[in-house]
Amino acid sequence: MVGALERAGLDAELMETAGHPVALGEWRGAGEGSPTLLIYGHYDVQPPEPLELWTSPPFQPEVRDGRIYARGAADDKGQLFLHFKALETLIASRGRLPVNVVLLAEGEEEIASPNLLPFLEANRDRLSADAVLISDSAMFAPGLPSLLFSLRGMAYFELRVTGTERDLHSGSYGGAVPNAAAALAQILATLHDDERRIAIPGFYEDVVAWDDKTRAKIQGLPFRESRFLEESGASDLAGEAGYTTLERLWMRPACDVNGIVSGYIGEGAKTVLPATAMAKVSFRLVPDQDPVTAGRLFRTHVERVAPPEVRVEIVELSGGLPWRADLEGPFFEAARSALRHAFGVEPVLAGEGGSIPIVTDLERILGARAVLMGFALPGANFHAPDEWFPDAHIEKGIETLIRYYEELEEIGA
Amino acid sequence: MVGALERAGLDAELMETAGHPVALGEWRGAGEGSPTLLIYGHYDVQPPEPLELWTSPPFQPEVRDGRIYARGAADDKGQLFLHFKALETLIASRGRLPVNVVLLAEGEEEIASPNLLPFLEANRDRLSADAVLISDSAMFAPGLPSLLFSLRGMAYFELRVTGTERDLHSGSYGGAVPNAAAALAQILATLHDDERRIAIPGFYEDVVAWDDKTRAKIQGLPFRESRFLEESGASDLAGEAGYTTLERLWMRPACDVNGIVSGYIGEGAKTVLPATAMAKVSFRLVPDQDPVTAGRLFRTHVERVAPPEVRVEIVELSGGLPWRADLEGPFFEAARSALRHAFGVEPVLAGEGGSIPIVTDLERILGARAVLMGFALPGANFHAPDEWFPDAHIEKGIETLIRYYEELEEIGA
Repeated sequence: MVGALERAGLDAELMETAGHPVALGEWRGAGEGSPTLLIYGHYDVQPPEPLELWTSPPFQPEVRDGRIYARGAADDKGQLFLHFKALETLIASRGRLPVNVVLLAEGEEEIASPNLLPFLEANRDRLSADAVLISDSAMFAPGLPSLLFSLRGMAYFELRVTGTERDLHSGSYGGAVPNAAAALAQILATLHDDERRIAIPGFYEDVVAWDDKTRAKIQGLPFRESRFLEESGASDLAGEAGYTTLERLWMRPACDVNGIVSGYIGEGAKTVLPATAMAKVSFRLVPDQDPVTAGRLFRTHVERVAPPEVRVEIVELSGGLPWRADLEGPFFEAARSALRHAFGVEPVLAGEGGSIPIVTDLERILGARAVLMGFALPGANFHAPDEWFPDAHIEKGIETLIRYYEELEEIGA
Repeated sequence: MVGALERAGLDAELMETAGHPVALGEWRGAGEGSPTLLIYGHYDVQPPEPLELWTSPPFQPEVRDGRIYARGAADDKGQLFLHFKALETLIASRGRLPVNVVLLAEGEEEIASPNLLPFLEANRDRLSADAVLISDSAMFAPGLPSLLFSLRGMAYFELRVTGTERDLHSGSYGGAVPNAAAALAQILATLHDDERRIAIPGFYEDVVAWDDKTRAKIQGLPFRESRFLEESGASDLAGEAGYTTLERLWMRPACDVNGIVSGYIGEGAKTVLPATAMAKVSFRLVPDQDPVTAGRLFRTHVERVAPPEVRVEIVELSGGLPWRADLEGPFFEAARSALRHAFGVEPVLAGEGGSIPIVTDLERILGARAVLMGFALPGANFHAPDEWFPDAHIEKGIETLIRYYEELEEIGA
């Protein structure tokens, strides 16, 4: 990392944290009066397992049909590489950049960046920037570049139900004592109403309504439900009544059961009455919701609906704020122009149903707004076997980023 | 086994089956004109695991505080032993029994007797009997002997829900595609109504209503809810409205979730949308319900309530008929008298919430009614660590059984 940053023409340093180190590259040649752009990326990747589902080994990149297959090709080493190359090209050919640049690559993004926050706090002055640029996402569609206007936040919980002290025999006790698994199912079934809205009282109170113009824009995007169905492997779509699929993913919160376990789950029949049952329940949040409020409402709701004969415990496992982009300002405008220039088409604004909690942390601590401009394509298998990045987007991406700096210069950022 | 049967004075034989052999003892000295009593028991036991929860080794019987602790002490080797000793005593001291006796000990009861049915069919003539006597249960309470008047039947299913072809990322898809775990919870939550009745249409149609006299008798039994609570480790009792705990266990069907699994069940948070979810769902049935009808109703109900966007599959794992005793006739009367004589108190009639499917098979194939007279005590840890049998009941049990044969003689069975 440090070598690659130095080759690109930056002063580079590997900085220790309590976990994996942060690689930091700096180019301060624009001078103290000039703005500073911080590029954020990560060099860690998801575990490649299950290995048997990879067509070629995850850590031996292979190009097939115009795609580079490798773990990290899209998330995020491949996209970070585009930044290295753009900086290297510009610095080598012109000797300078229009703005000061700090490139920060962390190694713990996939485990929710536990040590980045203290690192940012400790190096706040050195890292202070006017904008943050992140390439860790996908374009809306092939040939259709996009800039992210939103990310959903998250609140993730473990819900534990205890009915009895130990497992019991369903013959001797069935019908007369609490059944933890049935009680858990009963609780989970109250989380949505018949319209598939989240049925927790007050849950939508902080949800910002979107204006008709934005909704019309989203509805105008070239989105094919049939392709989404195929891509997701769902036999049918399902979601909140009154919203399109993209609106459900980008503008509306979601509540999901991510896992359940209770009692006997092996082969065949075992007549056990499970003493306990556990579910992982998570919420995707949208502006202006926050995980603390969501957790409070969830807790109150569960306590209200839980059968009185069971004990219920809720543990918060993770949380992150939703994010909405600032769609104005020179750094956003430069990205829009650069994409238009490189791809020959006006980029669209797209939402993202997932969460990148570090975005709001970066904005808050560094006092800068973020621009999220990704070059992967939908279906890139982020976190899955056969992760890929489009071969052609290496050149397109570098071209976009070079153009981005040129735009910054033109508009005198 | 064969040696012990021969020592008792019976002609004994180990007979092969496709699995573990059946030990058969016969005493035909009463002659062809006399009735025949078939004693059924089993020599196999549940696995002793988890071993670390045993106070003394499971296969080295140890007497502590008036209890013999060992795997099989109560279920069923200890109780079978009482029959051996009663027969041995009678044959040795008097040279004869008032009825012909066939003792059948199988070795696969704990795995649902897969090879006993064909064995019974193949040896139907040789095994034909006028009554079946089984000691494989517990008395109602210490000092209070009981005869079983009912067993619940069972219908056990695996319910599988598929929402998508593979697990998806809850950020990219949450709120727009089916969630198999949530759909399963939704289905399970429809199995009971607010009164904790089973909410499957038609489910109670074949349930025989009990007369007020029997209900009054059950309500008059010395049953302490506080002890039941303590014994079960439940913080509170829960069951069908309008029935007492014993009625719920003995006279009413139950529906239980025996296990659930879906998605991520490890430590911490994983933002997965599970593609599939599975639950084990079982019903305890009462006369005149049957597992085939229960399965049909369950299937119809699930198909009706399942969210349309998921696929549902139901696999039947096991089933058994409920049973009700014939409370009349010389073999039942003899048991009642023998218990009264040996324990000095009138035995009560008790139900049993569990299932012993072989009882109805024995009755059907051998053309005889069964008498279930057990000598273990409640809390004997059937199938659990520290299984025990009351020391004093060895003598009491043998005394009861000797008296049983004397009663049979008196009433000229």
